[in-house]
Amino acid sequence: VCAVGWFARPTSSHVQGDGTSSQYLRKFLDEMKASNIREHLRKFTRLPHLAGTKQNLVYAEQIREEWLSFGLDSVELVPYDVLLSYPNKSQPNYISIVDQLGNEVFNTSLAEPVPDGYEGVADIIPPYSAFSPKGQPEGELVYVNYGRTEDFVQLKREMGINVTGKIVIVRYGKIFRGNKVKNAMLAGAKGIIMFSDPADYSAVGPYPDGWNLPGGGAQRGNVLNLNGAGDPLTPGYPAKEYTYRSNLEDGVGLPKIPVHPIGYHDAMHLLKYIHRIFSLSSTLKLKPPVLAPTQYRYVILGGHRDAWVFGAIDPMSGAAVVHETVRSAGKLLSNGWRPRRTIIFASWDAEEFGLLGSTEWAEDNAKLLQERAVAYINADSAIEGMYTLRVDCTPSLHTLVYDLTKQIASPEEGEEGVSLYDSWHKRDNWTSDRDAPRISKLGSGSDFEAYFIRLGIAAGRARYTKDRKTERYSSYPVYHSVYETFELVERFYDPTFRRLQAVAQVRGGLIFRLADSQLLPLDANEYAGSLRRYVLSIAERAEKHPEEMKMYRVTFDALFSAEENFTIAARDFHVRLQNLNRVRMVNDQLMYLERAFIDPLGLPGRPFYRHLIFAPSSHNKYAGESFPGIYDALFDIESSANQQQAWQEVKRQISIAAFTVHAAAMTLTQPA
Amino acid sequence: VCAVGWFARPTSSHVQGDGTSSQYLRKFLDEMKASNIREHLRKFTRLPHLAGTKQNLVYAEQIREEWLSFGLDSVELVPYDVLLSYPNKSQPNYISIVDQLGNEVFNTSLAEPVPDGYEGVADIIPPYSAFSPKGQPEGELVYVNYGRTEDFVQLKREMGINVTGKIVIVRYGKIFRGNKVKNAMLAGAKGIIMFSDPADYSAVGPYPDGWNLPGGGAQRGNVLNLNGAGDPLTPGYPAKEYTYRSNLEDGVGLPKIPVHPIGYHDAMHLLKYIHRIFSLSSTLKLKPPVLAPTQYRYVILGGHRDAWVFGAIDPMSGAAVVHETVRSAGKLLSNGWRPRRTIIFASWDAEEFGLLGSTEWAEDNAKLLQERAVAYINADSAIEGMYTLRVDCTPSLHTLVYDLTKQIASPEEGEEGVSLYDSWHKRDNWTSDRDAPRISKLGSGSDFEAYFIRLGIAAGRARYTKDRKTERYSSYPVYHSVYETFELVERFYDPTFRRLQAVAQVRGGLIFRLADSQLLPLDANEYAGSLRRYVLSIAERAEKHPEEMKMYRVTFDALFSAEENFTIAARDFHVRLQNLNRVRMVNDQLMYLERAFIDPLGLPGRPFYRHLIFAPSSHNKYAGESFPGIYDALFDIESSANQQQAWQEVKRQISIAAFTVHAAAMTLTQPA
Repeated sequence: VCAVGWFARPTSSHVQGDGTSSQYLRKFLDEMKASNIREHLRKFTRLPHLAGTKQNLVYAEQIREEWLSFGLDSVELVPYDVLLSYPNKSQPNYISIVDQLGNEVFNTSLAEPVPDGYEGVADIIPPYSAFSPKGQPEGELVYVNYGRTEDFVQLKREMGINVTGKIVIVRYGKIFRGNKVKNAMLAGAKGIIMFSDPADYSAVGPYPDGWNLPGGGAQRGNVLNLNGAGDPLTPGYPAKEYTYRSNLEDGVGLPKIPVHPIGYHDAMHLLKYIHRIFSLSSTLKLKPPVLAPTQYRYVILGGHRDAWVFGAIDPMSGAAVVHETVRSAGKLLSNGWRPRRTIIFASWDAEEFGLLGSTEWAEDNAKLLQERAVAYINADSAIEGMYTLRVDCTPSLHTLVYDLTKQIASPEEGEEGVSLYDSWHKRDNWTSDRDAPRISKLGSGSDFEAYFIRLGIAAGRARYTKDRKTERYSSYPVYHSVYETFELVERFYDPTFRRLQAVAQVRGGLIFRLADSQLLPLDANEYAGSLRRYVLSIAERAEKHPEEMKMYRVTFDALFSAEENFTIAARDFHVRLQNLNRVRMVNDQLMYLERAFIDPLGLPGRPFYRHLIFAPSSHNKYAGESFPGIYDALFDIESSANQQQAWQEVKRQISIAAFTVHAAAMTLTQPA
Repeated sequence: VCAVGWFARPTSSHVQGDGTSSQYLRKFLDEMKASNIREHLRKFTRLPHLAGTKQNLVYAEQIREEWLSFGLDSVELVPYDVLLSYPNKSQPNYISIVDQLGNEVFNTSLAEPVPDGYEGVADIIPPYSAFSPKGQPEGELVYVNYGRTEDFVQLKREMGINVTGKIVIVRYGKIFRGNKVKNAMLAGAKGIIMFSDPADYSAVGPYPDGWNLPGGGAQRGNVLNLNGAGDPLTPGYPAKEYTYRSNLEDGVGLPKIPVHPIGYHDAMHLLKYIHRIFSLSSTLKLKPPVLAPTQYRYVILGGHRDAWVFGAIDPMSGAAVVHETVRSAGKLLSNGWRPRRTIIFASWDAEEFGLLGSTEWAEDNAKLLQERAVAYINADSAIEGMYTLRVDCTPSLHTLVYDLTKQIASPEEGEEGVSLYDSWHKRDNWTSDRDAPRISKLGSGSDFEAYFIRLGIAAGRARYTKDRKTERYSSYPVYHSVYETFELVERFYDPTFRRLQAVAQVRGGLIFRLADSQLLPLDANEYAGSLRRYVLSIAERAEKHPEEMKMYRVTFDALFSAEENFTIAARDFHVRLQNLNRVRMVNDQLMYLERAFIDPLGLPGRPFYRHLIFAPSSHNKYAGESFPGIYDALFDIESSANQQQAWQEVKRQISIAAFTVHAAAMTLTQPA
C-alpha cells in the first residue's frame, strides 16, 4: 500500500504575490526540526517492514493518520496487486560446496547475525535476491570481478574463459545488480552469486563499532531488468484487480537463472573452491502490495516506505524527512497559507521490488500527470555519507537548486553562518562544467523513474553523501543489510540530525518553490546549456571512428543545428517572460518543456524509456546517460558484425534526436 | 507542398460574449456563395495536379496568394521529402494474355479515352496502382470477387482453390484496395489485377452522358498498408531533409507483388481467359511533395489538393469549399471579428499516396497538437452523391453537428424553408440509435487519420452523399478516373452548386463554433452514450461463444463498470459547467477528453493506431471499428489454433479498454 496525500489549490482564486510566498518559504524551512526528524526515524525503524507485509501496511496507516493530523486535505491508500518475491521460509536458500561424492562440504549461512537490541525481532527476512527463479544448478565456479559488460569481455577475450554452463561469482558494486545478472545470463552462466567485497563496502571498522558491513552481513536486492515496465506481469498498465496478467514466463525482466547474495566471510570460503561444484536454490511467490490518486497542476514529493529489514537509511531517512516536510507545511496551513498548486506527498510501496508502487501509480494516473504535473521530487534515502550534498536533477532545475541552497544553512560543525551552497561548493566543485557545486544527471534505481523517463516530468533528487574523491566503496557499506538501524544513523551518520534537516530543507524547499512561485522556477536556458554539452560529448564519441563516419556519411550537423535552435528559443522565451501577464500560458510552456523530449515510440527495445535526452545506462541502471539512443548505437558498433547496418542505426538515432530537440524548441516558441 | 494558413487568436485579451459570436456565425454562413464555389472549382480543375508535380505546386502557390488576399494572418508552404510512386512513361504498365508460344495475344489499354474538351491536356497519368513493385509475373488467373478476407476464405474452404503462385483478379469496391492487395499477398498470389465492375460503378449511363464510369475508364489509387505510418520510409517522424530513411525493402506497408488496375472492357477480355497466363509490370520513383506549421489552441480545417488527374470531385469539390470558407472568414475579419482560438487551414499534398502530407505535418507538430489542438475537421471530396448529407465524427461532436445543421438551409429543390437537419433526417434516419439523422464512426482513407487515430484530436467530416438504401455501387462510379471533371460536377452532381454550399456551411460552421464559442461545443454525454452502445455490441459479439467465455473465464464486467463510471463523470461534468468561471480549465478538460483514449503503446501490431475506442477496421481501412483491440482479438478466435492463447488476448484487450475508459473518466473528474 502506498499512501498518497495532498494539499489542494485554493478554491478562491485569490493569489498573493511572490513576496508573500518567499516569506512563507523562510517560515517553512525554519519549521523543519532535526529533533522531529530523529523522532520520525526512531518511530518508523523499530520493526522490519518489507513491501507487501503486514507491518508495512501498519506504517502506511500510521502515516495516513499523522499526515491528516498535520493538516493534509486528504490521504488515500489504494492497493495494487503486483508480483513480489520472497524466499521460502521452510527451504532457505544457501550455496554449497559439494564434493565428488555429492556431500555438502560447506554451506553458506542462512541469515545475518542480528544487531544488538534487535535479537527478539521476528520477520527479519534473510539475505536473498528478489525474483531469482527456483533452481539448484551445479557447476564450476568462475569469478568475474564486478560482472560488468567489460568484465565479461575481458574474461573471454583476454583470458579465454567461457562461462557457458558455469556458475559465476561477482562482487557487488559499480553497477546495478540486475545488470550483473543480465550479463551473466547473456554469457551463458547457469547461476550467479553476488557478494560484498570489503574493498567496496568498508571504510572504518564494521558495525556496531563502525558503519561498515560485517563479514556475516549481505546485501539484499531485486535482480530484475524491468527497463521501466513496473509490475512484471502488467507492463504499461496499472496492476488493478481487473487488469490482465501475463504468465510468469512472459513477465518482463525476470531473470532465468538462480541468483543469491552472500557476505564476504562466506565468499572467502567459496573463492577458495573456484573451479569446484556448488548448488543454489531460491523461490518465487506472488504477494500484493499497493497505492492512490488526486487533483489543477501537481508538484509531487514521493519516496518509498518499504525496507528490506529496518531500513533506517534506505528508505526511512528519506521517509522521516518527508514526514517532517508534511508537518512543517501543515503548520503553515494553520497560519493561513495555501499553496498555489496542488502538492502531492507519496509514500510508495515495493520500491525494492522494482519501483513497483510508484510505477503502478504513474501508469494509473498517466494522463492526468502528463497534462498537469509540474515536477516530481524524489525522497529515497536522505543520507549515504557524512560529507556534503548530492543532487541529481533535470537541467531546468539547476538554477532553483542553487538559489535554494543559498538560503539553507550548512549542517556541518564549524560552518556556522556558512550556507549549504558554499559548504557544498567548497567540497564538490563541478570544475569540468562551471565554478559551482556539482549536479549530476538522473539515472534510475529509485521512484522518480516512471515520472521522469517515461512521462517526461521535470524531476530531481537530493541527499547527503560521501566524499567522491576519497571514499571509493559502493553506495554505503551496510546497504540492504540487517545493520541499517536507527542506531547506525544516530551514532555515525548524523548524530545531531542536522544533515537530515538540511536535506529536508532542500527537498521541502524545492516542492515549496515549485508549488508556490507565481512563475514556475524552471530554467530553459540551463537545459540549452546542458544539451550543448551532451551534443559535444556524443559527437566526440562518434568521432573516434573518423573513417567509418566518412564511409557511412554520418554527420551530427542536424543535431548541432537543432541544439542551436533550441538555445535561441530558450533565450527568447526567458526574455519574453520579463514582461508578460499570461502566467498560466508560460507556466504551461515550461511544464511541457520536459514532456517535449518524450518519444511515444520509446528507445529501441525499451518501450517504457521514452525520454530521448536521458535514460538509465543500458550497462548500469543507476547511471544516467545523455542521448541514450545515439550512445547505445555507437556502443553496438564495437561488437556488430554488420558495420553498414550498425552505422545506419547511428544515423537514424541522430536524426530522431535532432527532430526531438527541434520539436522542443517549438514548444518554447509557440504560445501554449 | 501543403499550404497551411491561419488566423491567430486576438493579441488583446478582449473577449466578446457568445451572443456576438452567434451573430457572426450567421454572417459567416450567409457569406458563403454557391457561385464562388463554382468559380473555385472551375479554376482548380483545369489541369491534372498529381502530388509531387509542378502543377500541384502551382496550385499551392495560387492558394497561398488567394488565402492571404482573403485576410489570413499567414500562409506557409513547407516541403517534406516523401516516397511517391509514378509509372514509367517509356515503359507503360499493361497486362497481356500470352499464348503457349509466348506471344501477347491480348494487351490491356495504356490509357483511358480522354473526355471532351480535355484532348490536348498533357500529363494525364494513366491508370496505375501507386507503390506497386516492379515485376512481370506470369501465371494462371483466378477471380476472387472483391478480394475481401471472406472471399479468400470462401475460395479456399468452399471451392478448394489455392491461389499460391497465381495471379488474382478482383473487383474494386466494398473495402479499401490496399486491403485487397494484402489479402492476395497473404494468400500467396504473385500478382493482383483490380477492375471496376459496372455492378459496383454504375448508376445511369456512362460519362459524359451520365456520371457512370465508361468501360475504358479505370480507378487509380495507392495500394499501401501503412496503418497510419505516413511516409513509408520515415514512420513516426517527419520526412525532413535530415530525417533518416529506411531502405525501400524495410519501408512500411509497401506491397511485395505487382498490382495493376483496369477498366471493365479490358476486364471482360481477361475474365474470358481465366486460368490462362499474363504478365504485368510497374515501377517506383522517389519524388518530393510538401507542408508547414503555426500558433494557443488550434482548430484545423484540412483537406488535400493533389488529384489523380483533374480531381473535380476528389478532392477539388472539397478544396473549393475550403477556399470559400477562407474567403468568408476573411470577410468577417475585415468587419472586425477575430476568432477566439487559432484557426488553421491546410491544403495537404500526397493524400492519394497514403495521407502523406497530413501525416508528416502531424508528425512534425505532434507535441504542439497533442497539447493544444481542440479539433480537426476534414475537407476531402465534398460530394459523392445527390441525395443528402453524410457525417462521420467523434461522438463528442454529435450535438454540435445537429445544432448547426438546424441553422443551415436544405439545398434541395422543393425544400425551400426546410433546414438541412430536417432534410437529412427525413432521408437518412438513424433509427437503430435514435430518431435523428444518422452519424457514422470515422474509419480512415482520408487526412483526419493521424489527427484522430494517432493523436486523439476530436475529428469529423461532412459531405453530400447518395441514397444508401437504393444506390449500392461503391463510392461514385468515376472515382479516381480521368472523368472526374468540372463538367461532371456541374452537369450532374450539383448544377446549382447549392449542395456544395451546404457542405461549406457545415464544415465552416463546425470550425467557426469550435474556434469561437466561449465554452467548447464538445459533448461528453454523447461520448458516454456511444461508449455504452459500443460496449454492448462488442460484448454481444463475444457472447456468441458462451462455452469458451466460461472456460477461459472471460468477463466484460470491468468494461461495463468503467463505462458506467464514465457516464457518471460525464454527467457530473456537464452539470458543473452550468455555474463556473474557469473557462480555460474546463475547455482543456474537454479538449483532453479525446486524448484520454490514446494509448502510447498502440494497438497490437499497429503502433500508430493508438485510439482505443476507434480504429480503421483491420479488414477494410475505410470502415471505423469501435473497441478495435477487442474486436480483432475476437476475430482471431475463429482462425487460431491455440484457443487458450487467443482468449487470453481477448481478456487482455478487455482489461486495457476498461483501464482506458476509467482513465478518461478521471480527466473529466479532476480539474485541469
